[in-house]
Amino acid sequence: MSNLDYRIERILESYDTRGGINLADAQNFPNRASVVGVLNDLENVIFPGFGEDFCLDTETLRFVTGERVHRIVRNLTKEVTKSIQYICMISNRDGTGCYKYSEQIVIALIDEIPEIRRLVFSDAKAALEGDPAARSIEEVLLSYPGLAALLVHRIAHFLHLKGVPIIPRIMSEYVHGQTGIDIHPGAMIGEECFIDHGTGVVIGETCQIGTKVKIYQGVTLGALSVKKIMADKKRHPTIEDGVTIYAGATILGGDTVIGEGSVIGGNTWITESVPPGSRIYNPPS
Amino acid sequence: MSNLDYRIERILESYDTRGGINLADAQNFPNRASVVGVLNDLENVIFPGFGEDFCLDTETLRFVTGERVHRIVRNLTKEVTKSIQYICMISNRDGTGCYKYSEQIVIALIDEIPEIRRLVFSDAKAALEGDPAARSIEEVLLSYPGLAALLVHRIAHFLHLKGVPIIPRIMSEYVHGQTGIDIHPGAMIGEECFIDHGTGVVIGETCQIGTKVKIYQGVTLGALSVKKIMADKKRHPTIEDGVTIYAGATILGGDTVIGEGSVIGGNTWITESVPPGSRIYNPPS
Amino acid sequence: MSNLDYRIERILESYDTRGGINLADAQNFPNRASVVGVLNDLENVIFPGFGEDFCLDTETLRFVTGERVHRIVRNLTKEVTKSIQYICMISNRDGTGCYKYSEQIVIALIDEIPEIRRLVFSDAKAALEGDPAARSIEEVLLSYPGLAALLVHRIAHFLHLKGVPIIPRIMSEYVHGQTGIDIHPGAMIGEECFIDHGTGVVIGETCQIGTKVKIYQGVTLGALSVKKIMADKKRHPTIEDGVTIYAGATILGGDTVIGEGSVIGGNTWITESVPPGSRIYNPPS
Amino acid sequence: MSNLDYRIERILESYDTRGGINLADAQNFPNRASVVGVLNDLENVIFPGFGEDFCLDTETLRFVTGERVHRIVRNLTKEVTKSIQYICMISNRDGTGCYKYSEQIVIALIDEIPEIRRLVFSDAKAALEGDPAARSIEEVLLSYPGLAALLVHRIAHFLHLKGVPIIPRIMSEYVHGQTGIDIHPGAMIGEECFIDHGTGVVIGETCQIGTKVKIYQGVTLGALSVKKIMADKKRHPTIEDGVTIYAGATILGGDTVIGEGSVIGGNTWITESVPPGSRIYNPPS
Amino acid sequence: MSNLDYRIERILESYDTRGGINLADAQNFPNRASVVGVLNDLENVIFPGFGEDFCLDTETLRFVTGERVHRIVRNLTKEVTKSIQYICMISNRDGTGCYKYSEQIVIALIDEIPEIRRLVFSDAKAALEGDPAARSIEEVLLSYPGLAALLVHRIAHFLHLKGVPIIPRIMSEYVHGQTGIDIHPGAMIGEECFIDHGTGVVIGETCQIGTKVKIYQGVTLGALSVKKIMADKKRHPTIEDGVTIYAGATILGGDTVIGEGSVIGGNTWITESVPPGSRIYNPPS
Amino acid sequence: MSNLDYRIERILESYDTRGGINLADAQNFPNRASVVGVLNDLENVIFPGFGEDFCLDTETLRFVTGERVHRIVRNLTKEVTKSIQYICMISNRDGTGCYKYSEQIVIALIDEIPEIRRLVFSDAKAALEGDPAARSIEEVLLSYPGLAALLVHRIAHFLHLKGVPIIPRIMSEYVHGQTGIDIHPGAMIGEECFIDHGTGVVIGETCQIGTKVKIYQGVTLGALSVKKIMADKKRHPTIEDGVTIYAGATILGGDTVIGEGSVIGGNTWITESVPPGSRIYNPPS
Repeated sequence: MSNLDYRIERILESYDTRGGINLADAQNFPNRASVVGVLNDLENVIFPGFGEDFCLDTETLRFVTGERVHRIVRNLTKEVTKSIQYICMISNRDGTGCYKYSEQIVIALIDEIPEIRRLVFSDAKAALEGDPAARSIEEVLLSYPGLAALLVHRIAHFLHLKGVPIIPRIMSEYVHGQTGIDIHPGAMIGEECFIDHGTGVVIGETCQIGTKVKIYQGVTLGALSVKKIMADKKRHPTIEDGVTIYAGATILGGDTVIGEGSVIGGNTWITESVPPGSRIYNPPS
Repeated sequence: MSNLDYRIERILESYDTRGGINLADAQNFPNRASVVGVLNDLENVIFPGFGEDFCLDTETLRFVTGERVHRIVRNLTKEVTKSIQYICMISNRDGTGCYKYSEQIVIALIDEIPEIRRLVFSDAKAALEGDPAARSIEEVLLSYPGLAALLVHRIAHFLHLKGVPIIPRIMSEYVHGQTGIDIHPGAMIGEECFIDHGTGVVIGETCQIGTKVKIYQGVTLGALSVKKIMADKKRHPTIEDGVTIYAGATILGGDTVIGEGSVIGGNTWITESVPPGSRIYNPPS
Repeated sequence: MSNLDYRIERILESYDTRGGINLADAQNFPNRASVVGVLNDLENVIFPGFGEDFCLDTETLRFVTGERVHRIVRNLTKEVTKSIQYICMISNRDGTGCYKYSEQIVIALIDEIPEIRRLVFSDAKAALEGDPAARSIEEVLLSYPGLAALLVHRIAHFLHLKGVPIIPRIMSEYVHGQTGIDIHPGAMIGEECFIDHGTGVVIGETCQIGTKVKIYQGVTLGALSVKKIMADKKRHPTIEDGVTIYAGATILGGDTVIGEGSVIGGNTWITESVPPGSRIYNPPS
Repeated sequence: MSNLDYRIERILESYDTRGGINLADAQNFPNRASVVGVLNDLENVIFPGFGEDFCLDTETLRFVTGERVHRIVRNLTKEVTKSIQYICMISNRDGTGCYKYSEQIVIALIDEIPEIRRLVFSDAKAALEGDPAARSIEEVLLSYPGLAALLVHRIAHFLHLKGVPIIPRIMSEYVHGQTGIDIHPGAMIGEECFIDHGTGVVIGETCQIGTKVKIYQGVTLGALSVKKIMADKKRHPTIEDGVTIYAGATILGGDTVIGEGSVIGGNTWITESVPPGSRIYNPPS
Repeated sequence: MSNLDYRIERILESYDTRGGINLADAQNFPNRASVVGVLNDLENVIFPGFGEDFCLDTETLRFVTGERVHRIVRNLTKEVTKSIQYICMISNRDGTGCYKYSEQIVIALIDEIPEIRRLVFSDAKAALEGDPAARSIEEVLLSYPGLAALLVHRIAHFLHLKGVPIIPRIMSEYVHGQTGIDIHPGAMIGEECFIDHGTGVVIGETCQIGTKVKIYQGVTLGALSVKKIMADKKRHPTIEDGVTIYAGATILGGDTVIGEGSVIGGNTWITESVPPGSRIYNPPS
Repeated sequence: MSNLDYRIERILESYDTRGGINLADAQNFPNRASVVGVLNDLENVIFPGFGEDFCLDTETLRFVTGERVHRIVRNLTKEVTKSIQYICMISNRDGTGCYKYSEQIVIALIDEIPEIRRLVFSDAKAALEGDPAARSIEEVLLSYPGLAALLVHRIAHFLHLKGVPIIPRIMSEYVHGQTGIDIHPGAMIGEECFIDHGTGVVIGETCQIGTKVKIYQGVTLGALSVKKIMADKKRHPTIEDGVTIYAGATILGGDTVIGEGSVIGGNTWITESVPPGSRIYNPPS
């Protein structure tokens, strides 16, 4: 093999100019593989049976669930601590108590699981009722990408509200990679949400989405301005209850409100509010 | 670790209200990981050499193929049986004979493999001829997502026609996650189909697509109405032979027919039939 | 199990008509899993710490990096050799020296790593500055799909320039599957590029993209004609420095130039050049 | 590769003369890997913490144990059923009910676990007290091969008493391979047994060993005759309470009784009974 | 972490004085893990069903066997080539042709498989007939260490006769580690051999053992002199047909012949020939 | 599945009476799998090339070695800390500083590696010279169990001298299971030691063994008394330089000295000192 020594040296020198992930002050960032492992455990607690190749009965279920919950607390607390410590350091707060604090957040997530289950089942029901091609609730649970994205979102959103940095974004980007549906952990989404097909859907950080909203593939709920100065403002639209947004529609702006029960046609481009009950369509080609 | 016992209890109680995948009457649904394993085996039977890191010669090929076919029959029959039993139960038909019946379906799929190979090679040829960037058939086989999606679709469609529930959808959603191309197993697609780039393509359950059709990224072949009452109707368009549909076009409706040899421009929105040989474009911005 | 013997025979016969990947003249094509393994090693050399679950210190870093670089050289040379041999054979050139030649290419890639790191960090900085939702450079490195796509592209593009067949396309298609962003290895992309959300982005083979360009989800930079005869022509647009292209815009044609600093609105459709500083928007629906 | 086809044919022909494990009448014998997996689960239920790399607390312990017990019942019942069916077939008894019957045996084993724990802890205590080199009970649990052999024996012996064929022997041979200690599942061994070093120890099927017996490496408790006609007779010695047998001693015969509290010196050869309190030594070389 | 750099340097310097396995002239020695993988494949070809957790039927068997045989040829040829090249280099013979030559040896081993199966089944039959505790041929195949040792020996001996260096010893040492039975690949062992319990058995390189010989645990068939000058002489005893050697017996010397049908008692020490039909016992203690 | 709930409850209750490994005061004992992983890394640092399936060149070697050394320090320090903390607690010493202290011990082990390499190569040379069947140093390194046992012993002995509890015994028992050779970590063994075949060899805690000693299978160097009160006394024999001990010999007692250059015949039983140059044999049977 040709001489690689000085080449490796050059790469190492380049690390001095620009470090990697875990090198700045030798702290350790959350590990993507570990966060994904926690998500899989959470998915299996929320829908027991997804990952099993044997038939879970009620008795076994108790132990399988208990072990998973303990493993989630153990592993997620470790990752949250790493992400919190990073913040602690920056803000010069005292680092002690980070682990304790992180564990409280994770336990609060465990407490939220029944509510997350209720929400995700409401989403599954919406999919079953909203898609003529859906034959059974099991088909929805096993094969609808919108459901997978909402399940992860409802977890990531909870952690986002608790102020956990980075990890919610790792989660949302993971399921974005799986489904093509990109929901920022900050978005607020009501129950009975149905995202069909989903590829290309983008839902921005400060969106507020009501209940019984249907969203098709390629819909963007975005910002009108991407100036950094907007970071703390509401930049993304509000979608009221019962709205349907067909494929490829783009709705932009923090002041834009789609009124209750409106139908937004495919490929439309909307940057201003529309009243409740609106029907917005492009003229056909 | 803080007290998790009563928290786990609350999660278990929530299962009484809304069960998981495998809990309803303790039956066992198809397992996604197992279905994906079968798909990988099928891909390797259809294109021998995909997964090998050594050079398959003709002699070895016989045994490798033989073992894979047996493994497919063994594993897929198990999963099909689980999905069929679920139907049996619902319709109060006698559950006996499910395994036998499932095996017959899987063996019919094995019988179909030479035909599936013929179709997928016709698709590969169409890609090679239709994409100026394609340099060789091997490049197409190894790196074109449209080909991967069509390969899986042709398998899932066969199982769908045989009445297998859930599994074809698990298959189509798997490759949707891989490629961003969402083809419902019910769609009928003729030979020499070329889907380029593919992200965001949606092809609905009752589409009928002729031969030599080209489809670019972001194309939707969808329904005008998503009312549940439409479930047994033809809701998606018919695309005749030799049609080209450019990126982002949306074609909707069960009565919509795109006539032979038409070219549908990018970002167009079509809800009515167009005659053979049409050229439909948006005016430029 | 029913008789499968003659069925397997039929499949084997179908291989005589249309071979698989590795069967034509018993040569061995690049292996996707191996190429993906090399990409993971490269990602970890470029951003040390991505894959570690412990905290890399400077001392360990030297060895971890050294071992990875050697493994990259070992494994990628093997795959490049396979892809080069295939070309050698076709062009009837002498096959000897392929390994040596391949190793030189891989070592040139190693030499390029500091430059690739510089480019990708410029992309990360552009993301941090361009996205109000981005909180830290680490969040960008760990969770922005556009960054992942650009990292892989900058590797694949280098190999493409060196004339390596197939492998750059396997790489670009791998990250397309992960992110929904489809960049052809031939595309030239300047520094400080920011691709946000990214699902559905398509960037064609002969694109030329300047510095500080921002591209949102669903943007197509494509060809006006997909005739095979165009294969050696510039078929895709030129995007000058500082251009912003919003979601869903389509820009087509090899002579199309988007002038410096222009802003291209969402869902626009552009097939002709626009001068520097242009503002192109669709009328709202 | 040279022609292997007819060579494989010859191997297949040789199967017609002499079948393999699972071929006779296409029944399926117990699987060694699965039996070893069950043993590992049992070891972890008996000594929780052996396999964990985190610290089990009391709460987690409940779930981890519960899941393991369920997995043991699921997997071991499957293997026992296979071994029982084989017997059923031979004896022309009706095959139905085999699974039910097997499950009852496995559940009886679960019921026995507290007693097995009591016995194995008595063995560990005997090791700690009997070996001057032993520093702590944890050292004994983690590193004494005699303890590992007795743990497996007490499981295998229970299944042997229940009439389970083959599986107890797979278990005893597994731990024989690990430790060099070969105890037939039929042997009866009292509590507080200490086997030190253990390599080469052989304890025959019809041995009866009292409490507080110490056995050193290379001790054989064997048969005087290995005639097949002896299969149902007591062929191996009886060792009464409190006997110590030093390294390399050989004690043979079904009528041979080593009386209570005797000490049998190293390398002795004994084929007749000795009274309680005997001291038997070889003259030094 | 404390400074390890100069410590690692010291270790590297120590490599200059004494290299490792693969460093002398940068050649590559056989890999133990790979050799063990080949042994597992061979075991499964010889006793189909050992490793399967499903029921092999005759049809599947053909493909499973064919694939295994090809894999054995592929992998073992690679390892044999490495061991042969090492010899080539030492003897200054031309290195070319090593692979071809190695492949011929491996194919000759494949040709020997039916004969090896015949021998190993004769050994299994001898175990079933010779051990009162043996209940069935399947129990013998699944749980007798003597059988495992003989199976590996018959493979290693064949390769030893073909002049393959190192690999036969890796094989014999592997099964020695599993069973405590140490048979040098050079030993000649007739059919219907039964080694019971086996721990501590040592059978030297130049032993000649007839048919129907029974050997118990701890038996040594060794050399009287271990002078290096004896390397090419017959140093180990000859055991004629039908001899039984009980536990712990030691028989030494290249001229020592144990006459046909003799019985050698436990713990005996024999350095001279005994005539056919002898009964040699120690006086009891 | 039958009711397992109350059965699991009974097992959990039995934990209250007798805990497991990691439950007493919820501390965490060393993990066997992790210790074995460290041993494998150490083996590969001592003999680079053992585990590689590619050819290490000098350049790669530096990085591979560096990474392994860092991993050893990281992982072994963790395990040593766990074992030390357990002692700290018992002796009521302050637990802080345990990690630091453990790291110092592990780094001292790293410093010792060149010396351990020197010793183990002297052992390998002794094997090559002492065994007529040995053909090359590589054969010795790859297939002699005595060498594997001495390699592990020289590591375990170093840690034992440093006062590390439990871990040295886990190491020695691991290699005992692999080879049948049981050397207590406390034993002192000089250079150029050759243990042939090795099964059944037992070398006690307080043995002192000189240089150039040869030991054959089944040799015991043990204690005359196993009274617990002897724990801090020298209980095992002294073997002076150049002694050879043939198979099955038993040498007992802390005052027993085998004088320089003596030869101890097979199956002898020695409990008193013998002068230098002795030849001790049993009379033949």
